[in-house]
Amino acid sequence: MPAAIDHDQRRLALAEVAADLVAAGGADAATMRAVAQAAGFSTKAVTHYFADKRALMLLTYRHAALSSQALTDASQPVGRADVAALLHSLLPIDAKVERNWRVWFSFWGLAIADPEFAAEQRDRVRDFVGRIAAILASDPRFADLSAEERPALAEDLLAQLIGIVTQVVFDREQWPPKRQIGAIDRALLRSAKARKSS
Amino acid sequence: MPAAIDHDQRRLALAEVAADLVAAGGADAATMRAVAQAAGFSTKAVTHYFADKRALMLLTYRHAALSSQALTDASQPVGRADVAALLHSLLPIDAKVERNWRVWFSFWGLAIADPEFAAEQRDRVRDFVGRIAAILASDPRFADLSAEERPALAEDLLAQLIGIVTQVVFDREQWPPKRQIGAIDRALLRSAKARKSS
Repeated sequence: MPAAIDHDQRRLALAEVAADLVAAGGADAATMRAVAQAAGFSTKAVTHYFADKRALMLLTYRHAALSSQALTDASQPVGRADVAALLHSLLPIDAKVERNWRVWFSFWGLAIADPEFAAEQRDRVRDFVGRIAAILASDPRFADLSAEERPALAEDLLAQLIGIVTQVVFDREQWPPKRQIGAIDRALLRSAKARKSS
Repeated sequence: MPAAIDHDQRRLALAEVAADLVAAGGADAATMRAVAQAAGFSTKAVTHYFADKRALMLLTYRHAALSSQALTDASQPVGRADVAALLHSLLPIDAKVERNWRVWFSFWGLAIADPEFAAEQRDRVRDFVGRIAAILASDPRFADLSAEERPALAEDLLAQLIGIVTQVVFDREQWPPKRQIGAIDRALLRSAKARKSS
């Protein structure tokens, strides 16, 4: 009797390989053939999991999102919420986080011309804004924030994070880890001071 | 005697056509052939201006940057500097500005795997941070800011702008113009309040 194939595990392994290929070589580098080769599968076996290049790219994007979500979940201290820790965990200081951002940049380049990819990106961002808002609601340092103020601050903090990362990824020299963390902390401090003064 | 060809004007016209094609269809849509066809040139004539697809993409990126720079220059009131007006002029409310951002997103998708493109992006961002800092130095609303504080705030404001735009472009429904302007103004207000409280 042949050993049972764990298809979920294989799909995951292929998405992981594809994410590495996209991050290093851009969307064009993650061909069905290249993914098969890097994973040690036949091209035919890969088509069992991804019907075509588009499906591969979509799954790779989702895989990068899940990979980063695991890191953000791990960033939260037991029993309390910490927005600063959440945002720090998404800085491209960690090699895996940087890889995931590279996959997203590559995906955005496709999403501008692909309504389904654009909708995927939109939904991910809406979800993530919701997650930041939920953490703001439980982080004692944001206890003074009203429920109505949370979504806007969540959007602003996400904007700050994305905007910093787009600068960092293309200019590593000027952006050592300390400076990346400093830029996030400045945004948080500014928000705290602005609330106190109002 | 045949009429003299204005090569600069032709190059500009081709870059304009290419920017429209990239914004609508992504980097893959701007082939030499498609650009030639849309501009009413022969493919051979286009190769006179762009040796290959990569050169076309690089010039298109620069063209989008110049196109937006013209808009940001025009945003400044005569005789004084206005950071809010500068940032507002780069929101994808104007169709041309949105087109230019779409070209940049597409370019980033390539730049993650192309050191020369990445260097171009890095230099543009450094330049633009410098321009924002210069405007901060002359905007009366930021007169209290020291020269040392300006570059960091310039980076933060650029991050906020980029981060907002990446949300807007894939979620137009939730981001009418008023809300985009509100997000920029919130960042500026927060910065002003934080400075007053410190």
